[in-house]
Amino acid sequence: MNTWSKLDERSVPAWFDDVKFGIFIHWGPYSVPSWGPKRESVNTSGEAYAEWYGSAVRQEGSAYRDFHRRTYGERAAYEDFAPSFRAELFDPQRWAELFRRSGARYVVLTAKHHDAFCLWPSRHAWNWNSVDIGAHRDLFGELAAAVRESGLRMGAYYSLLEWFNPLYLSDPEAYATTHMIPQMKELVDAYGPSVLFTDGEWEHPSETWHSTEFLSWLFSHPDIGEEIVVNDRWGRETRGRHGGCFTTEYGEVGYGPDGQELHMSRERKWEENRGIGTSFGYNRNETLDDYMTERDVIHLLVDTVSRGGNLLLNVGPTADGLIPVIMEERLAQLGEWLRVNGEAIYGTSHWPERHDSDAGVRYTVKGDAVYAIFLRWPERETTLTAPGLAGKTRARMLGFDEPLTCRGAAEGVTLEVPVVPPERLPCRQAYVVRFD
Amino acid sequence: MNTWSKLDERSVPAWFDDVKFGIFIHWGPYSVPSWGPKRESVNTSGEAYAEWYGSAVRQEGSAYRDFHRRTYGERAAYEDFAPSFRAELFDPQRWAELFRRSGARYVVLTAKHHDAFCLWPSRHAWNWNSVDIGAHRDLFGELAAAVRESGLRMGAYYSLLEWFNPLYLSDPEAYATTHMIPQMKELVDAYGPSVLFTDGEWEHPSETWHSTEFLSWLFSHPDIGEEIVVNDRWGRETRGRHGGCFTTEYGEVGYGPDGQELHMSRERKWEENRGIGTSFGYNRNETLDDYMTERDVIHLLVDTVSRGGNLLLNVGPTADGLIPVIMEERLAQLGEWLRVNGEAIYGTSHWPERHDSDAGVRYTVKGDAVYAIFLRWPERETTLTAPGLAGKTRARMLGFDEPLTCRGAAEGVTLEVPVVPPERLPCRQAYVVRFD
Amino acid sequence: MNTWSKLDERSVPAWFDDVKFGIFIHWGPYSVPSWGPKRESVNTSGEAYAEWYGSAVRQEGSAYRDFHRRTYGERAAYEDFAPSFRAELFDPQRWAELFRRSGARYVVLTAKHHDAFCLWPSRHAWNWNSVDIGAHRDLFGELAAAVRESGLRMGAYYSLLEWFNPLYLSDPEAYATTHMIPQMKELVDAYGPSVLFTDGEWEHPSETWHSTEFLSWLFSHPDIGEEIVVNDRWGRETRGRHGGCFTTEYGEVGYGPDGQELHMSRERKWEENRGIGTSFGYNRNETLDDYMTERDVIHLLVDTVSRGGNLLLNVGPTADGLIPVIMEERLAQLGEWLRVNGEAIYGTSHWPERHDSDAGVRYTVKGDAVYAIFLRWPERETTLTAPGLAGKTRARMLGFDEPLTCRGAAEGVTLEVPVVPPERLPCRQAYVVRFD
Amino acid sequence: MNTWSKLDERSVPAWFDDVKFGIFIHWGPYSVPSWGPKRESVNTSGEAYAEWYGSAVRQEGSAYRDFHRRTYGERAAYEDFAPSFRAELFDPQRWAELFRRSGARYVVLTAKHHDAFCLWPSRHAWNWNSVDIGAHRDLFGELAAAVRESGLRMGAYYSLLEWFNPLYLSDPEAYATTHMIPQMKELVDAYGPSVLFTDGEWEHPSETWHSTEFLSWLFSHPDIGEEIVVNDRWGRETRGRHGGCFTTEYGEVGYGPDGQELHMSRERKWEENRGIGTSFGYNRNETLDDYMTERDVIHLLVDTVSRGGNLLLNVGPTADGLIPVIMEERLAQLGEWLRVNGEAIYGTSHWPERHDSDAGVRYTVKGDAVYAIFLRWPERETTLTAPGLAGKTRARMLGFDEPLTCRGAAEGVTLEVPVVPPERLPCRQAYVVRFD
Repeated sequence: MNTWSKLDERSVPAWFDDVKFGIFIHWGPYSVPSWGPKRESVNTSGEAYAEWYGSAVRQEGSAYRDFHRRTYGERAAYEDFAPSFRAELFDPQRWAELFRRSGARYVVLTAKHHDAFCLWPSRHAWNWNSVDIGAHRDLFGELAAAVRESGLRMGAYYSLLEWFNPLYLSDPEAYATTHMIPQMKELVDAYGPSVLFTDGEWEHPSETWHSTEFLSWLFSHPDIGEEIVVNDRWGRETRGRHGGCFTTEYGEVGYGPDGQELHMSRERKWEENRGIGTSFGYNRNETLDDYMTERDVIHLLVDTVSRGGNLLLNVGPTADGLIPVIMEERLAQLGEWLRVNGEAIYGTSHWPERHDSDAGVRYTVKGDAVYAIFLRWPERETTLTAPGLAGKTRARMLGFDEPLTCRGAAEGVTLEVPVVPPERLPCRQAYVVRFD
Repeated sequence: MNTWSKLDERSVPAWFDDVKFGIFIHWGPYSVPSWGPKRESVNTSGEAYAEWYGSAVRQEGSAYRDFHRRTYGERAAYEDFAPSFRAELFDPQRWAELFRRSGARYVVLTAKHHDAFCLWPSRHAWNWNSVDIGAHRDLFGELAAAVRESGLRMGAYYSLLEWFNPLYLSDPEAYATTHMIPQMKELVDAYGPSVLFTDGEWEHPSETWHSTEFLSWLFSHPDIGEEIVVNDRWGRETRGRHGGCFTTEYGEVGYGPDGQELHMSRERKWEENRGIGTSFGYNRNETLDDYMTERDVIHLLVDTVSRGGNLLLNVGPTADGLIPVIMEERLAQLGEWLRVNGEAIYGTSHWPERHDSDAGVRYTVKGDAVYAIFLRWPERETTLTAPGLAGKTRARMLGFDEPLTCRGAAEGVTLEVPVVPPERLPCRQAYVVRFD
Repeated sequence: MNTWSKLDERSVPAWFDDVKFGIFIHWGPYSVPSWGPKRESVNTSGEAYAEWYGSAVRQEGSAYRDFHRRTYGERAAYEDFAPSFRAELFDPQRWAELFRRSGARYVVLTAKHHDAFCLWPSRHAWNWNSVDIGAHRDLFGELAAAVRESGLRMGAYYSLLEWFNPLYLSDPEAYATTHMIPQMKELVDAYGPSVLFTDGEWEHPSETWHSTEFLSWLFSHPDIGEEIVVNDRWGRETRGRHGGCFTTEYGEVGYGPDGQELHMSRERKWEENRGIGTSFGYNRNETLDDYMTERDVIHLLVDTVSRGGNLLLNVGPTADGLIPVIMEERLAQLGEWLRVNGEAIYGTSHWPERHDSDAGVRYTVKGDAVYAIFLRWPERETTLTAPGLAGKTRARMLGFDEPLTCRGAAEGVTLEVPVVPPERLPCRQAYVVRFD
Repeated sequence: MNTWSKLDERSVPAWFDDVKFGIFIHWGPYSVPSWGPKRESVNTSGEAYAEWYGSAVRQEGSAYRDFHRRTYGERAAYEDFAPSFRAELFDPQRWAELFRRSGARYVVLTAKHHDAFCLWPSRHAWNWNSVDIGAHRDLFGELAAAVRESGLRMGAYYSLLEWFNPLYLSDPEAYATTHMIPQMKELVDAYGPSVLFTDGEWEHPSETWHSTEFLSWLFSHPDIGEEIVVNDRWGRETRGRHGGCFTTEYGEVGYGPDGQELHMSRERKWEENRGIGTSFGYNRNETLDDYMTERDVIHLLVDTVSRGGNLLLNVGPTADGLIPVIMEERLAQLGEWLRVNGEAIYGTSHWPERHDSDAGVRYTVKGDAVYAIFLRWPERETTLTAPGLAGKTRARMLGFDEPLTCRGAAEGVTLEVPVVPPERLPCRQAYVVRFD
């Protein structure tokens, strides 16, 4: 019996906890209008999602619909954008190189979003995929090859639901068994993804989706059964409770069918996913203030890892196949920071308790080493109180040659921090001291 | 058991033999490029078919492909035309009125051609039909309603094969049972067509298509089981042999898998289908000489009916929803002729033997009346030799008030034909004398 | 001094009176929307003109504007159609062959219409002509070469006014001298047209347009000064009064600035111009009933010539460069008639008085021959009363080998007309008897 | 006589020297393809200019042409892009707010570039301007109003030459007097720009352009004659020698007709203009490494001002009317720096000699104050040797409350620089010490 209790016994594969940082990519026909309303704050999920265009444009009175009418006229529908999703400047090697440079270790591309458009030539989505219409390229396959060539792992986002598929709408059970499951298997068999990031699970319980049967098949897959990482989006009762790694989105687990906020057990590996800005799909309405700063993205990564999570940070390419330069820059800034401080991130563990958190310090550990990550430059004399530091006698700031002076203190260790002019700082926005 | 022998026992419904003349319509995304090569002669089938664009454009070296590259560039594919199939000027009432005026009594529209694009919102062709993309209208449904409102019957053309459907290509059996049969049933249930004109049957035997099972279902259908007319295109072994009405296309039954020309039994009701010009789908390359003249279309109708056939004459609308005026004119000319001579066509029977054929005469009969249709104006004294005329003593030219003098002759009857100046001819191109 | 009195002394060149029949072509960016409202009757000028789209679409509340909004959305303007005027299927040789086959002897193409878009690379209309934008071909030049190659003469339509040219609107005098006159000279020098069909003259007197100066230059042109035919559209006071050949449009001379109908002196050569249907530019809204029949066009030509006029019959090609087949057919029908009866048309003179007109007879004369053109097949014994027939003793129907019997009668001649079955008629719609 | 010697006597208006920093904007139909080849280095001018697309695409073998063919097909030409330059998301207030926030004090928009397309409804560029085709908006006028509303000055870029204008190509003299000069006057009269940035002057001497006559008219203009700033691009002999402010582009004065590098007199006010990246018009090919960093742009401004120049920094908006976020960020970073350090920039003078330059120090002066701008954080004890510092006894770092200790030294002053942790630095990339 493939019940959840049995499936939940499977641990999230170790490689996933080690790599900490991945790139999420939302790309599809919604990248043609590439539009959503402005959002008040960059730190909440919701209204600005450009990848929801296809659904929102159908709602009389929505901002999307007003924009659509004004810009494309009454007659055009979302589906008519498909041939304009041409990806004519898409260079998978350039993308892969950028991701590698960012320090990410895995990449997850929307193989299929809620609009059901596939970025690979799925036989279950004939004439509604990027090979049959528009780009006439296997976008998923091309990127997977380039990403692996660069030494990163490749994953697939897959939406269980399909907004407007008449089979789904009328008979979700038949949809799941004759369309969805075969399509997921096709995707897995064709590309052997290391991550399967499902979504769109909230409208039905996992039983309707036949999730446990599928997972049982997946975990026994001869090629990627051991490697594969899945998440907790397998039915409306599963978030934060069943499956593989748990997920948060803009910091939230999600909402249950009755509207109450969900919570997740912290005993599982988890992963935060969000855009660099307010949207996953490229949203032309976003201006500078809608994007996280260099400081924001570095602190987000550090904080997430220090709490046991992975960060899956999203970029939204344009319909012609380019990654907006502001996103490229944030990735490059993360990469620059990680080139100095990566050892405090990759392969580390976290402490369940968050010592010195209010003082702007985050901890990770690896073997005997403890990494204190300072979100602000530390005071010249800084005392840390985490119990795990007891007995540590050596301290070194990453990116710095000379050791730091450190001595035992009443409630921890006291560190002497040198004076460093800005140009000689080892990095920016967060500074790591390793204790041995 | 639904074997052919049992199904073949069902007669073609009587209404179909009575009506004689229908309109065929080929309309779909191929109406966007609306192009095929020029054909040498208007009277053979083949190379100029614009509705084959989607297939021909894929063949390196074809004229279609050269045209496509030159006109649309390297990147565009046939499938990218779908949103441009907009039908923005389509007025179903205007079409129906034209068909009624032509004297046709039924209409057959390509609900789905070999490209699988549906002109109705088929749940089995999601995002590849005229409601989801392009026109955003139920073209089949709108026309069916208008046609019936005008007192004509509505029929559907349906291609069994789908050129590029991966399921069809890899597993035709599964395709037939999980896609094709359910889709045909959906079409029948939704619109209750009076004619189901299948096609694209030649790649597999009827067993693969599950044709007999489907026909058994169809003939028992509570709503249209009695009314429906089907043809003989149900598998590669069925043309001219099994099914309902037999079909010819540009005068040919078709070709078998080994390339030899097929022949049909003349014991069945049959139907000739062809374009007014050299193509079914609108072909911009056709000029005046590629279209039949008024004389051609009238003679074609007369000759077909005199041999026991129906004529299903095709028009190819443009992507914006208009019927080219030259086609409108041919239909109007047929209608004008039929307003005078319809009684010699509708509801008539034919003689198996073709008397006086070389003299340019065609016969039809109805009750006691015999109709001699002269393809040229008869000589002032004309002797007819058909045995069926024996004993006829009264003759009248349709459209003419005064009776004609007629007397028995050695081998038939001799008719005295009056002198008529051109403006007072009852009609043009063919003249009917009724004998009682 | 180039006053009108002096210019009016120049006769219309003799070749023009001899040829009788020409083809008018309206083609430009308006061929992209190719739309005007339906008109009640085919025989009046006005509302259905598709070539007025660019102006009408600007008028709030017009049918054009409603259509435009519905079809192209709020944002698009007429000018945005220019790149879509691509002429990708334009084959000048095919056009020329069709015109030759129609029996026309000259062709007049809209080199520039009121929208100012030029079909040749005018240096005075940079980026607003068919070489710089859209088709990227010298449409006028290509057609001129093909037309001449086919043995026909080539002419140019040129609009004096330009609807929206700011220079014209603010300073028509400067417009005329710095833009219009130089552009007309450029056109004349580049292509040496045999006809210059000006239009759009009604907003200003000829003085503003500097018409007499231009004509003086034109009539002294070393290459085409003798050959060139001009019309009477040179200023708001000139129609039917000054210039070269006088013009009617759908039978009307036009309307003066105070709205009253203009009349023309009948002492000058004149030319009727009109569409085969209700529009000059291609209008997709036209259906069969909006086009003249074969009978209509033949009678129009005969009647026009019998009254001393030329017929300039218009075709409206589509934006892709094709002549709609219904227009091709009308031209072919004229050509078929002229192949039999051309000698009663070309090179003939007319009688100022219209004898036997009510009896459906039209006369032309050439040398000693008198041509009676019967618009209906004549009675077996027909008496004609035209004084010019006195003394004619020989009669022959064109297309017929045997002479007709004819004898003097009290008020003319009496003709015996043979009985002819429809297939052996020499032609259709009108029949010519030549008297010597 | 309006000779250069007289015109050169006019000083560049004082406001211009005070404001130091302006925004340049290149926007036009070239923003539709928005493409140029990648350039090796961000610091040289040339090959990557996307605004040269219209010219480069005509050159067989150019990278532009290959791209064009591949992407748009054989038939499309540059001119066909005009209707796609739609600016549908253009919000002039948002742009103006961004420019204000950047600390810029004036804005120069390409009213007309070498392609001759006008961003205002020029009567001399009918149907080749943004009101008649594409956007259907007065882009220049709308931005001018918003920019002035935000308290900044508005200027116009205007190309003397027009690549493909037939009048220009055949008769530059006539072009200048009948088209160019009237159009420049129209622009000046309609919008009263504070800056007229001419360009495209290199193909002819100023005499051909009638530059001195125009400047004489301009300087006597009742409204903006005093205010207006012009540059040195008035004829192929004028760069660095005549006119108003001298110009450099990517640091270069330009090249003479014989290919030798030009130099400019340093006695005049000058202005450096360049893109934030390698192109002026938006070039989709540019990735992060093609853009200047925050450090680069701040140092560029500081260095330019310290040498007496203004910086006119270019942004290239997209065809839909957005400023790429990476450009927005660089402007915001400059603005952040200027909010702290603006007093060392605006209204200052420079020293002709560049003291302490090798030590990474730039000087500006204003009244009694001397500003030392450190391109790197200064050493704890820093000695400056500029003679102008003699006698200065008070020192303060901008953005810092406490005064700095400073004492006279043998060859200048010695400064004691405090220790500051990164978060408390007054700004980034360059630090200003004011001496009184």
